[in-house]
This record gives sequence, structure tokens and C-alpha cells, in this order.
Amino acid sequence: MALLVEKTTSGREYKVKDMSQADFGRLELELAEVEMPGLMSCRTEFGPSQPFKGARITGSLHMTIQTAVLIETLTALGAEVRWCSCNIFSTQDHAAAAIARDSAAVFAWKGETLQEYWWCTERALDWGPGGGPDLIVDDGGDATLLIHEGVKAEEIYEKTGAVPDPASTDNAEFQIVLTIIRDGLKSDPKKYHKMKDRLVGVSEETTTGVKRLYQMQINGTLLFPAINVNDSVTKSKFDNLYGCRHSLPDGLMRATDVMIAGKVAVVCGYGDVGKGCAAAMKQAGARVIVTEIDPICALQALMEGLQVLTLEDVVSEADIFVTTTGNKDIIMVDDMRKMKNNAIVCNIGHFDNEIDMMGLETFPGVKRITIKPQTDRWVFPDTNSGIIILAEGRLMNLGCATGHPSFVMSCSFTNQVIAQLELWNERKTGKYEKKVYVLPKHLDEKVAALHLGKLGARLTKLSKDQADYISVPVEGPYKPAAYRY
Amino acid sequence: MALLVEKTTSGREYKVKDMSQADFGRLELELAEVEMPGLMSCRTEFGPSQPFKGARITGSLHMTIQTAVLIETLTALGAEVRWCSCNIFSTQDHAAAAIARDSAAVFAWKGETLQEYWWCTERALDWGPGGGPDLIVDDGGDATLLIHEGVKAEEIYEKTGAVPDPASTDNAEFQIVLTIIRDGLKSDPKKYHKMKDRLVGVSEETTTGVKRLYQMQINGTLLFPAINVNDSVTKSKFDNLYGCRHSLPDGLMRATDVMIAGKVAVVCGYGDVGKGCAAAMKQAGARVIVTEIDPICALQALMEGLQVLTLEDVVSEADIFVTTTGNKDIIMVDDMRKMKNNAIVCNIGHFDNEIDMMGLETFPGVKRITIKPQTDRWVFPDTNSGIIILAEGRLMNLGCATGHPSFVMSCSFTNQVIAQLELWNERKTGKYEKKVYVLPKHLDEKVAALHLGKLGARLTKLSKDQADYISVPVEGPYKPAAYRY
Amino acid sequence: MALLVEKTTSGREYKVKDMSQADFGRLELELAEVEMPGLMSCRTEFGPSQPFKGARITGSLHMTIQTAVLIETLTALGAEVRWCSCNIFSTQDHAAAAIARDSAAVFAWKGETLQEYWWCTERALDWGPGGGPDLIVDDGGDATLLIHEGVKAEEIYEKTGAVPDPASTDNAEFQIVLTIIRDGLKSDPKKYHKMKDRLVGVSEETTTGVKRLYQMQINGTLLFPAINVNDSVTKSKFDNLYGCRHSLPDGLMRATDVMIAGKVAVVCGYGDVGKGCAAAMKQAGARVIVTEIDPICALQALMEGLQVLTLEDVVSEADIFVTTTGNKDIIMVDDMRKMKNNAIVCNIGHFDNEIDMMGLETFPGVKRITIKPQTDRWVFPDTNSGIIILAEGRLMNLGCATGHPSFVMSCSFTNQVIAQLELWNERKTGKYEKKVYVLPKHLDEKVAALHLGKLGARLTKLSKDQADYISVPVEGPYKPAAYRY
Amino acid sequence: MALLVEKTTSGREYKVKDMSQADFGRLELELAEVEMPGLMSCRTEFGPSQPFKGARITGSLHMTIQTAVLIETLTALGAEVRWCSCNIFSTQDHAAAAIARDSAAVFAWKGETLQEYWWCTERALDWGPGGGPDLIVDDGGDATLLIHEGVKAEEIYEKTGAVPDPASTDNAEFQIVLTIIRDGLKSDPKKYHKMKDRLVGVSEETTTGVKRLYQMQINGTLLFPAINVNDSVTKSKFDNLYGCRHSLPDGLMRATDVMIAGKVAVVCGYGDVGKGCAAAMKQAGARVIVTEIDPICALQALMEGLQVLTLEDVVSEADIFVTTTGNKDIIMVDDMRKMKNNAIVCNIGHFDNEIDMMGLETFPGVKRITIKPQTDRWVFPDTNSGIIILAEGRLMNLGCATGHPSFVMSCSFTNQVIAQLELWNERKTGKYEKKVYVLPKHLDEKVAALHLGKLGARLTKLSKDQADYISVPVEGPYKPAAYRY
Repeated sequence: MALLVEKTTSGREYKVKDMSQADFGRLELELAEVEMPGLMSCRTEFGPSQPFKGARITGSLHMTIQTAVLIETLTALGAEVRWCSCNIFSTQDHAAAAIARDSAAVFAWKGETLQEYWWCTERALDWGPGGGPDLIVDDGGDATLLIHEGVKAEEIYEKTGAVPDPASTDNAEFQIVLTIIRDGLKSDPKKYHKMKDRLVGVSEETTTGVKRLYQMQINGTLLFPAINVNDSVTKSKFDNLYGCRHSLPDGLMRATDVMIAGKVAVVCGYGDVGKGCAAAMKQAGARVIVTEIDPICALQALMEGLQVLTLEDVVSEADIFVTTTGNKDIIMVDDMRKMKNNAIVCNIGHFDNEIDMMGLETFPGVKRITIKPQTDRWVFPDTNSGIIILAEGRLMNLGCATGHPSFVMSCSFTNQVIAQLELWNERKTGKYEKKVYVLPKHLDEKVAALHLGKLGARLTKLSKDQADYISVPVEGPYKPAAYRY
Repeated sequence: MALLVEKTTSGREYKVKDMSQADFGRLELELAEVEMPGLMSCRTEFGPSQPFKGARITGSLHMTIQTAVLIETLTALGAEVRWCSCNIFSTQDHAAAAIARDSAAVFAWKGETLQEYWWCTERALDWGPGGGPDLIVDDGGDATLLIHEGVKAEEIYEKTGAVPDPASTDNAEFQIVLTIIRDGLKSDPKKYHKMKDRLVGVSEETTTGVKRLYQMQINGTLLFPAINVNDSVTKSKFDNLYGCRHSLPDGLMRATDVMIAGKVAVVCGYGDVGKGCAAAMKQAGARVIVTEIDPICALQALMEGLQVLTLEDVVSEADIFVTTTGNKDIIMVDDMRKMKNNAIVCNIGHFDNEIDMMGLETFPGVKRITIKPQTDRWVFPDTNSGIIILAEGRLMNLGCATGHPSFVMSCSFTNQVIAQLELWNERKTGKYEKKVYVLPKHLDEKVAALHLGKLGARLTKLSKDQADYISVPVEGPYKPAAYRY
Repeated sequence: MALLVEKTTSGREYKVKDMSQADFGRLELELAEVEMPGLMSCRTEFGPSQPFKGARITGSLHMTIQTAVLIETLTALGAEVRWCSCNIFSTQDHAAAAIARDSAAVFAWKGETLQEYWWCTERALDWGPGGGPDLIVDDGGDATLLIHEGVKAEEIYEKTGAVPDPASTDNAEFQIVLTIIRDGLKSDPKKYHKMKDRLVGVSEETTTGVKRLYQMQINGTLLFPAINVNDSVTKSKFDNLYGCRHSLPDGLMRATDVMIAGKVAVVCGYGDVGKGCAAAMKQAGARVIVTEIDPICALQALMEGLQVLTLEDVVSEADIFVTTTGNKDIIMVDDMRKMKNNAIVCNIGHFDNEIDMMGLETFPGVKRITIKPQTDRWVFPDTNSGIIILAEGRLMNLGCATGHPSFVMSCSFTNQVIAQLELWNERKTGKYEKKVYVLPKHLDEKVAALHLGKLGARLTKLSKDQADYISVPVEGPYKPAAYRY
Repeated sequence: MALLVEKTTSGREYKVKDMSQADFGRLELELAEVEMPGLMSCRTEFGPSQPFKGARITGSLHMTIQTAVLIETLTALGAEVRWCSCNIFSTQDHAAAAIARDSAAVFAWKGETLQEYWWCTERALDWGPGGGPDLIVDDGGDATLLIHEGVKAEEIYEKTGAVPDPASTDNAEFQIVLTIIRDGLKSDPKKYHKMKDRLVGVSEETTTGVKRLYQMQINGTLLFPAINVNDSVTKSKFDNLYGCRHSLPDGLMRATDVMIAGKVAVVCGYGDVGKGCAAAMKQAGARVIVTEIDPICALQALMEGLQVLTLEDVVSEADIFVTTTGNKDIIMVDDMRKMKNNAIVCNIGHFDNEIDMMGLETFPGVKRITIKPQTDRWVFPDTNSGIIILAEGRLMNLGCATGHPSFVMSCSFTNQVIAQLELWNERKTGKYEKKVYVLPKHLDEKVAALHLGKLGARLTKLSKDQADYISVPVEGPYKPAAYRY
């Protein structure tokens, strides 16, 4: 795809696959709105006061229908928005088209190259010469990373004149990042500094991105305040758990049409994502085996009737392998070679390095047969036996299906809106330092409360007497900070 | 689509959507073969002796990837095959293309009009002037119906000279059937008699078709032997139950991306299909309410923790409605008007008359908004509230997803192959009269046995002493005929 | 216990453990009545007309609280009743006391010896010199067996003067049966003939008893009509399935207090009982492995995510073993020796020969440590490792807990009442020959219908039009005879 | 029961129901040891070094078989132990007998009066004139409460000469506490001060006790260090959740034999205990309705397919009511009056004030019919309709069954042993102030690890490279402190 920014008739920039899908996207957006009561409540509650008036928000987060409802919630509250996806396969092109046409600057399409991916990220951050966004909505931390790396490079450049050398790393993706920064230095050696200076803060969506933020906080390198949305209960215990419980089978079925009942499914990792995946596979009639490093999570799996073994124990007898760990090198090419013919291997955890895609792609004589986009059969030369890799090792629920359903994303994204509001409203109070914060519990409870009516639930009210008895306010929050749910 | 028969280079007739999808179909066919051990075992066991040599088989059964493996099993055993789909939405075009190119005469595409549908059925039965097929594989009984109606009309025509009058019925589909027969009478007034005379028998796939056959048996109008494949245990207790348990959520997710967890799902009917659907919805985290007429099935639902109410009781509070009854007039337009905005209404049971599509389509002022093919939002004028209808009221798992997965279809289709073999092998022995038969239990058990190895199961063997103790042969069959499983 | 018949003040015979428990029994009986709507409806519907007036009914069926409600339903309908248990451990002594005091002649206590057991059976059949009962309610067929063996012996005795020789069998229990008959011959050589002549018929409760009856029908030796209650859908698909799903964990918990979650449970047999047991263990968090001889049942287990292996495959790694087969020699002493220390071995299927109790008891050097009644630890001399046997290998749910709960037994027992009524009402019409019958489907549906209201269910009614469409009467029955539910 | 301390031949004090049950208790203790790998590992690891040599430990914790294994683990590590139960119904008399005879001073029996209960608590704290215990194992905080109240009263007495006035409260139980303290003041006005001075610390088992401790910490009145064992993940997410999932149906079945399938069960509260209870009821085939005050927990319930309503909404249609809230006044007598006849009402959460027992007992004209101990039917005069109360409103799993099974208690109690060791080992280091602490995560993980082998699990090991990638040590702990599991 030629990397040229296009413009709508109103002059808004964009780059999407097919603008003619905007109507289709709009129809699905309207369906999603009915399923996203948290976001719609935010529009009702905050829309009239336009709290984001004057705020520029850049988002780097899967450009799906659900994200479109988030974006239009931000704009309904007064923000100006630029957006890119945080995964090369996760964009829903009709969602991107609808938003590009109607609401915000979008740079995203399904099936980007890594080169294209980072170009889109750059575009989303590019608010013109006056600097970058006021706020970032990040997922996985790539927008945040680019700014931090950019600032670092600019400092070195200022001191030493040295520019980043893409050849200094053998990580293909990081080479691209360095190239972008290097090329930017030439045109504006203060570009990322200007961004940093303007930035009020970031709200981060996922475990992986949050881990990076805490690491930066520990190292003292974090350049702006961050709100950890992932660890809101209404995010990690809902999106990660119930979202994946929904979208793992969805992805498997769309990609392979395979019967899950009767199969042996190995779920690597039994955190929130793994718990959702294991539950989904068990409920669909598979026999589930869990691999874990953490004895507590392992014992939880056992209490649910799941077997806990090592990958090595089961690699040659299982039918479906799902990585959910947030770590790397979980399933290596040598494991894949021992698998049954047409074993399915997929990742719903984190980056594509959970699965040793590099090892697979470079295995001598291996043959890749693309059944359809995101569904590849890889055949090993010696055995003529093949395995099926979904979404090229990237998040299969976004690559092979449409990600998490609207309702659960409404929980996550309502946290995002509240986090963005919090950062913006407190931008001048100094409340947030260059640290990582979680939202206070009463806001977490509020997010949940906004989602109950849609499901017909009726809450019980504490009497004052009862509230005193357990030492909580009548209107909450109801649990101590460390409560695990 | 212009209704012209095309021909492959080898001269085989076909009419499909897009022959260029044949390669994609072949790849998915190869995946499916690995998941269909019963059919592949038939090829190994019977292929060498070519038992179907000389047999012409016409199939009227959803033209999916799984059916493609069935067709190629029939041809691998020596048969010549012509095929059409038994549902206007159920064809997978890449499957049709692969078969048309490589193996059999196919007349089927996704999204036929009713007119096109019956044209395809005629083509599948059209083996040239010498008469029709030797055997029929039927699903729902449309091929069988056409022959029976044709014979009836020819008899009247012969006696009275009267031809069928399409205007004599207000069933739009039956008008088409009568038109076809009427037009046929002109060219060959013995066409269906010749078919009937040649026909060795039919094997029927589903509850609906089987019901028609028994009715004809009772009325004494059945023209040839029939094997009821539906009531093999390895069909109705597997395909109907576990197949739907898989394909209902698959269809829902592909069509609407809706979060099932937390929703109220109404399953109308708690037979095998309903049991599978209710299990699927419950497992996905929905609250399930069952409607039933049969107190035994109702009590089964209660024992599984499901609520049993009438549609009227819950019509305005549920989110998802699924019909599985095999009856008509289950959800009427007046029910739909009482539903919540964006309630999802779909049918996985039987014909599109389970849902009152006629009433909906003709409701004054109703507006149809097609979100995407097979997913329509219908908006009522008075309330501006809409409901979402899947697959235009037809089988949503075939219309919105890809039907049942290969493994469970392998059970069903292995029964089909065995039934066809049985009819063909006994064609001259008089074993089968013009009645409806089920397969003997030892063949049913054989079908199951062929599917155990793929799932790593190991059977226990009875000792002679144990077999005598319970009065069964060591090698089975193990259960009395009335055993319910 | 001295085997002397006692008498109530009103002159009714009985032999129970402790008459002072009658009040406690009455209280539990009253609770049970609320849970047994089918039986209570029978009292309401039939009580006023006293249909059993003049009928003598002998029952041989676990003397539990639920059976007590059955007995008092029979007496409420006018019958005179004598009762014994059909299992040495299954009597609930407070139930026996309440019935003995208030309603019927009872001969039963928890923990009978085999000698005592058959003495009780004789007493229940002993209606004085004028012959035996008019009707039998049987469970497992022991009352029926005694009469058949008695008649056979009397015939031989009449012809040859030979009496049965207990030494002719090495089955300890059958030796007792022969002794009883032999001793009876001396006092009345026509005793069993008189019984047979009076008998109108038997209704049989379980798979095992039904199997015996069909065997006699095939051999032409059945002496009176029999109704197979077991194969009513509302019996075998409820009592066997949902009853065991409830009572297996109940028995395990009362006997051993063991945590089921996390354990490996082997369920031998996947019929209705096995399905209930496997579901219970899975739901409680165990990992379940099924053993099966029947490939269809095996495939059903696989579809539910259960592993299917042989006992040999898993004998040394499992924690809980449950036999449900209705066959013998399922778990042999050599298997037990390979088990983990404190593995639990129990039977919920059939007689105590599912488990090789004989082999265990006679194993050289084995040591039995009774933890509490019905819970024994058996220690093997070589390994000093022990296994835990429940209920001495007999039905553990009745031996270690209180059997199935009232509600599900109400279904079974309403079938019994209806079967008894049918036999009695038709005693002079010749409707029933010396064959085995099942109840017609409309009665089966009626039994279910009587149980819906208690659970708050509301049935949907067919319209005449719908009923015609599927060719059933509006008021049912709704399914063909072979329908499997 | 006469409240006289008895002595074993070795001179150890005790008061139990029936010393002749000691053998039976010992047999069950031996079974439990096999199921409690964590405790047995502590004996192996720490036993040889006798770390508790010289330590006096008082326990106030349900005197069950599992607790017996805990006690003998403490004594195996060198401690001297005195014990009472923390619930008037929870003692298993055979366990108490075995421990009293063989290992420790026990003052506990099933069915204590409140008077007896506090007498036992006093005895367990009474180590003679030299002061009290060094360490307390507490459950619910009654031992801790007595000391704190005692110290408070002694201070007032010292200052003012005033003694506590039992009439100053209308809480019947607190009247007894005040009486005990008042009477103690006369004999030794420094008794509780001496205790406090000697005390190294307490480890507390449950939510309720922990809540009291944090309250005292906040108020600055906590007199010694406390370790909050409840909030170890391996306690609250196991014992509370999986323990109750096991013991709720166990208690229901033992107390009432009621069929759970098909019933409507209301679970009040959806914390860890409520989650376990709701799961158990759902799995047993009940339809579950949850009541909640916390929107997050409510949304979790919805995601599992449970309905969330208020008690008022469902009070007249449900069959089983379970309180799990840890709060008071959950089910009031006015609610009970609206319930269906024979509705079951029980508490598995906290004190008997979750259910309004006071209101019930004093309701004019109410009639209590004791079916058997811990199972009472209460009949209201106006309706003649009754409800069934389990365990007099106290913890039904302990009152009606045997509490949680050994395996899960091994997790909890291994935390207790580790907490006691930690307090004792650090008694002179000042590590622990008068505050409430939780155990560090690596000890939590260790507890889990000790329980994996028994269940056949095999953990995966992190490579150094992987550990670095996610920034954790190879050997753990693997999760941040706030991780929710």
C-alpha cells in the first residue's frame, strides 16, 4: 500500500483500506453502541460539559468496531483524535473507514507490514509542528515506546551527534523503530522532546504495556504520568478473562472450523487470559491441559479439574495449543516438530514471540501453505506432517476473529475514558507525577455499575447499620484495595 | 445468476459461484479429511473393491466442505455423483468449486433464490434421458419430494390430462415445485416415473425429512425404500446435539459479534438440537430459558438448571431467541414487536417457518437494514426498535457460519455411506421394501468405533464371561434396540 | 438379630431395628412428601376411588424415606402392603420404623446379613396360607427370583421328590435361596405355586431386574406379566442419571470427607448411571476418566471432554474408582493392589460383584480396618498400602448416604404406582400376558407433567395447527416410541 | 455437661464428649494425613529442628479432623498446645477425643451452649498462673477478643475499681464474655495483662477475624502482632472458594437430603465464599440467583450466567437460601414469612446474625420442630407454612457436615504453621510490630507448591532468559503483590 496520507472532504487525514466500507462500519457501530452501556453513559454524563475541549488524543489500540465507539465517545466529550492500531492484523477495515469518514484521523488497516505499522503509529502521533498529543491511549505501549526511544535518541544526538543505528539490533521490528527515529532527527531534532513536553499522560490498556511502564518507573525513565487501566478489576478480571473466553473459540472456529469437543487443548499459562481460555475449551468439550510456572495458578487449575503438565509431556498428543503467558519462547519450533499432524498452534497472550515464529520460518525446508489469510499450514520436510499456525503467531482473536465483544470492551474502555478524564482534569494540579497509577476503587465500581442495567441486574443496598457493621460507606467502595475478586 | 449449466474440460456439468475458489476449497477439504476418520476409513476399507461401480448417486445436502469429503468418499468407492444443496444459504462456494472441478457434478451456490434452488435440484436429478439416479442422499427430503410430486402429477396427467396448477397453493415455494413439474410434463410425461423405476432407495439425513418419509409410509405412498440415517444414534445424538452446541455460538459470533455471557437466551425446544443449543449458551455464560411442549423434555431442562417458561413470559426481557423445534409458528411477528431493541432472533431447527418471516416481511412499515449478508436489522415503525434476524430465518449455523464441524459430520456421513452401500448391495435381494428403515445397531456402533482413535480413546474389551453375564456378544451390539443413550 | 416377627398393637407384623425412631421417620416422611409431587398427585387423583381395595402388594425395594412415601401412596389407594428391602445396607431405620408403626408390614434394617435379607424377603411374600401377594413391586428382581426358583423346585419335587441342594452352587447367596426353598418344600410343597397362581404381575424398578425378566421372557419361563418401569423415560433418564449425579458425591462425602476437586476419578461405564456419576465428578472439580466397552457411549464421553481409557491404563494414578456397569468383575483384586494408597473404590451400579470383593476378602494377609460402618480400609500385606472400599462393594449411595433424593424418586415411584394400577385394573381383561411391558408414552409424559409445577415450570401448548404440522395430538404423546431424549 | 476439666493418665487436661471415640478419630486422622501434604511436608522439613520447642500455642478453631492434623503438626514441631473450637457446632467429637488422648489439651464438643463455649475458650487460654500462651491460632477472633476485652476491663478496674456489667449489653453472647471477665477480675486482676505481655502474636484464619484485627489496628488498640492468614491467596482463594463449593452441597445433603437439581437457590453475596456456593449450586443443577451490594461482584455473577436480583425479588419463589456475606441482617424473619413451604435457609458466611435467628425465635406463635440435630423446621402460626433452618443459623457446613475437606484445609493450615513459625522465629527481632501482616508471596507460592505433587501436577520451569524477560526471579515469586489470581 502506498504510504500516502489521504484527506476527507472536511480535510481530516486518514489512511484506511477501503473508505466504501464506512456505511457497513457505521451499521456495526450502531449495533455496538447498544452493547456498550458504559461508554454511552459517559456520553450522557459528560458530553454536555465537553470536558475534553481542546484536548488532542492519540490512540494506539486495535482499530475495531468497539474501539470506534471509544473514539466517538472521546470526540463526543470534545476531544480531537488521531488513531492507529497496535497490531498489524487487528484492524477491522469497516470500523476504520467509518471513523475516518466521520470522526477522527485513522491510520490503520488489516494486514499491515511492520513497516506500515510504524508509519501509522508515527502518523497518529503527528499533530503537526506544534508538538504531539496531550493524551495517549495506549495498548501494548508502542506509542509510549516510540516517544521514549525518540527522546533518548534526541538526547544522545544533542550530546554526541550520533544517530541511532538500526543495524545495532537484530530485532527486525526494533530496526524499524530506530530507522524512524533516525530519519526524524534529520527533519526535527526536538520532535520527541516537544511531544514529551506537551504530554499530560498516557492510559495503558494491557498487561504487557503496564509491565513496560512499571519497568520505566523503577528505572526512573518514565517521562509522563501513566494510568494503568489493565489492573482495574473491571478490566483485567473481565476483558482478559471473559473476553478471551469468548474470543478464543470464536477465533478457532473462524480460522479452522475445527470441532473442539473431544480434542485435547493445551493452554500455556493460567493467568486471567489462560483462565478464560481454559474455561472456553473445557466448556466446548475439550480435555484441557494447563502448563504453568506459578504453583498458585497451577493449583487453581487443578481445583477446576484441569491437568497440569509441562509442554514436553503432552506436545505429541494434543490437538490445540494456546499461549497466554505474556512471556516469550513458550512453544519452540522443536516442540512444533513433535506435534500431531494438523495440530493448531495459536497465541492469545502477547506478542508473536510467545510462539517461536522466527524458528519456524527459518526451519530448513519448511513449507508454508496459506489456507486463507491468518490460517497457515506449515509442513516440515522430514515428516510431511504439518501444523496450523493462526494469525502468524500474533493475537489470534484479533487476527482470525473480531477481538473481544462489545459488552466486555465497554468495561475496559469506560476505564480508559475515566482515566483520560482524570489525567486531563488534573493536568494542572500536580496530582499525577511521572509514575504509574491505578484508578481508585470507587471508579472501578462505577464502571461495573454502569453495565448492570443492560443485563437486567438489581443491586442490593446496604443499610447504614450494615455498612457500619462491616466498616464501609453505604455507597462504597466496598472492598479493601487488596481484595482479589 | 443466469441458469445455464457449465461444463468442465472433462465434460462434467456444474453451476457454481466461482470456480477460481477451487484451490482454496481443496486446501480446506484436505484439512477436513484429517478430521473425518469415519469417511476416510470407508475409503480404506471399501475403496479397493469399488462397490459403487455403476451407481449413480444424487445428493441434495448442504454443499459444504464436509459434504465434499462425503462426495469424494462416494466417488472413491466407484459412484458417479450429482449434487445440489438443500438450503439456499448453506453452500460454501469454495467447496462447491473444488468438487465441481475435481469430482462430481455440482449445482449450488451460497444465496440462491428459491427459483434457483429448485433449478439446482432438478439438475442434480437429471442424469439424462435414461432416467434418474440409482440412489439419493437426501437432507430434508426435497429431492424425494420432487420425485413423489412428479409421479403423482404424471399419474393425474395420464388419467385426466390435467397439469399441476401453481396457483392452487399460496406457498411460494410449492408454487415453484408445481411449475417445474408442470413444465416437465410437456417435455417428458414419464420423467419422474422413469426416475422412480430406476431408484434403489434414498438415505435421509434429518428429522424433518424422516418425518415426511414416515408419513408417506403410513399413507402407503412411499415409492422406494428409505433408510432413516437421522435416527442412528451416531447421527441424532451427535450431529444434532454436539454439532449444534458448536455451531450455534459460531453462527452468533460471526453474524453479530455479540457477547453471549450475561445475556438471557431463550431456546425454543429441548430436543437434541435444543439440548445442544442450551448447553452452548449456558457454557458461554448466558442465562438460558427453555420453552417446551413436551413435559419430559421440560423436566430434563429443569434438571440441568434451566428455567422453563413460555415465550410469552420472557419475550420482552430476553436478548437472544433460538428456535430448534422442527415445528412452525414458534416466534410470530407479534412476539418480535415485544422484544428488546436489537434482540437476536434465529433458527437452527428446521425450515424458515419456525420464525414468522412472512409476518415480519409484510408488517406494515417495517424497515429492513442489512448489516451484512445474513444479518438483518428489522425496525418496526411504531417503536423504532429493531430486532436482528439471522440467515433470513433459515438455519443460522449454515447461513451465518459454516455448519457443523468436520468431526461430527464424519459420524453422520459415515452413516450415509453405510446406508447407501446397504441399499446398493441389497438392491436385488428384496431385503428392503418400500418402507423406512434404520441401520442395525452393530453398524451404528461401528460408526462410533471408527471415530475413537482420532481422539485417543481406548475401549475396554468384554471377557466372554462378562458378555454372557449381560447376555450380549463379546463384539457387540451391546445395547437393546430401545436403549436411549 | 433374632429373626422373630413382631406385631404392632393393631396386629400388623414387622421386624425393624428400632421402633423408637418412628417419630423421626415420620418427620422426614413429611418433608419428603413435599418433594414428591407425583406421588402426592396420585393420592389426590386416585385416593377417593380406592382402586387398590382388596389388593395385596409385596414390595422388595430399598426401605428408605422415599419408599415410605411410595408405600403410603399404595395404602392411600386402598392396598394392603408388606415390604422388605432389596439391599442389606439400604434401609433407613427411621423410615422402616415409621411405616411399620403406621402403615404396612415391614421387614428391613440397615446392615442385614444375607441370611437375614432372605428371611425378610420371605416374610414380605408371606401373606399366610392363602397364597402370596396380588402384586409385586420389585427392585433387582429378588422377590421375583424367589418365586420362580420356588416354582421350579416344586415342579421337580413333585416329579422326582428331589429337593434343592444348596451345596450344588458355590454362590453363597444362592445357597441361602436354595435352603429357604428346600425348607419350604417340607411345610408346603405348593407354596410358590399358590403364589404364582394368585399373582397378577410385577413391576420392576431397575436395569438388572429388567434384564432378568427379559431373559425369562426369551426362555419362556416368565410366570406372570411384568411391567418394566426402569425403561420409562421418567425413570431411567432421571433416577439413574440425575439421581446418581446427586448421590455419588453425597456418598463419597459422607463416607470419606475427601476433597473431590483436583482428584482423578475413574468412572467404569458410561450408561445413564455412569453419565450421572461422571457429570458429578467433573462438576466437583475432578478430572474424570471413563472406561467403556460400547463405542457409542465412549464417543459420548469424549464429546463431554472426558478421557476414555482402560482401567489398566489408569489404575495406578487415579484417586477414586466408581463402577456403574451392571456387569461383574470390573475391578479385580489385582487392580486394587496396583492402586495408590487410600484410593477409594466404590460401586453404584449393581450387585457387589462389580468389584471383586470375594478376591479382596480372601487375599492372603489382607487386613480390613473399619473406619466406620460402610467405610473400610483394606491393607495389602506386601505394600502396606491400603484402599478404601465403600459399602462393602454394594451400592454406595444407599450404603453410605441415603440414596437418591425424594424429587427424582417421585418420578420413578409415580411410574411404579401407575404400573401397579395398570396391572391391577387390567387383571381380568387379559391385556397383559406373561411378558415384559413398558408403560405407554402418554403415561410417561404424565409422570413428567406432575413434576413440573413444583419447579415453577410453565409448558407451552401446541396449537391444533402446529400439532397437525408435526402429526401429533395436541395433548401428546409428542414423540415416537424410539425417541431417545 | 458438667464443666469440669478432666485429665488423661499423663496428666493433660481436657473436656470432650466421649473419649471412647479416640480410636475412630485416630483412624480418620490417618486418612486425613494422606490428604494434607502441606502439613505433612512441614513435619518433614521442620520437625527435626523442633522450632516450637518451648512455645505454648492456644488455638481457637473448629476442632475437626483437619484441625487435629494441624495440632499434631504443631506438636511435631515442638509446641505445647491447648485448643478449643470457635463454633458451638463445629467440633467433631472423635477428632477431639483423639487429640485429647494423644496430643494436646482439648476443650470442645459438638453442641456446646454459649456458656460452655466461652468456658472452653477460657480453658484453652489458661496455661496456669504464669500467664497465657506464646502464640494464638485464631479463627473469627474470639480468643483475641477475650484478651483485648480482658485487658480493657482490667485497665478500667485498676483505674476506677469498676467491673464490667453484663447487663450493659443486650447481646446475649457478649454478656457471657463480660461475666467471665468480671469473675476473672476477682481472682486475678492482672490475668489478661499477663497474657498480653507474654503473647508473641496471633495468626488469624478468617475474613471476619481479620476485619476485627484491621479495625483494632486502625483504632490503635491492637495489643500484639497479627498475621492475616485469610488473605494468603492459598487460603482465601482456595479454602473460601473451593472449600465452600464442596461443603455447601455436603451440608445440604446431610441435613435435608433434598434434590438440588431443578431448585432455585439464592446465594446472598458473591465474594469468594459466595462464588464457591453459587458454583456448587449451579453444577448440581439448581438455578442460581445472586444478591450483591458490590457492582463488580455482581457483574462477575452475571458473566457466569447467574441472575442478580434482590432478596425481595425472589424471596417467595426460591427453594434454598444461602448467606455468605460476612454481614448481618441478610435474611430477616419478615423475609422468611414470605418463603415457600419448606424453603431451606442456611448460613455459610459468618456469624449466625446473617440470618435473623433472634427475630425468628421470638416471632409470636412460631413453632420449632427439630427434625434432627441442626435441622429444624420452623412453622409460622398464620400460614402453617414452615421453613427449614440449618445449624441454627450458624455455619451449616460445620454444623451439618464436617466442614471443608482435608486437602483444601491443608493449604489453609500450612499457612497457619508458616505464620506461627514466622511469629515465633522473629519474636525477638522486632520484625513484627502491633500491626496486621500478610505472609510474603514466596511463602504463599510455597504453600501451593507443597500441594501439587499429591495431584500429579508438573510445573514448568522458567529459563533465566524468560525470567529476565518478565522481570521475575527464576524461582519466584512470579506475580506483583496486587495480582488478583
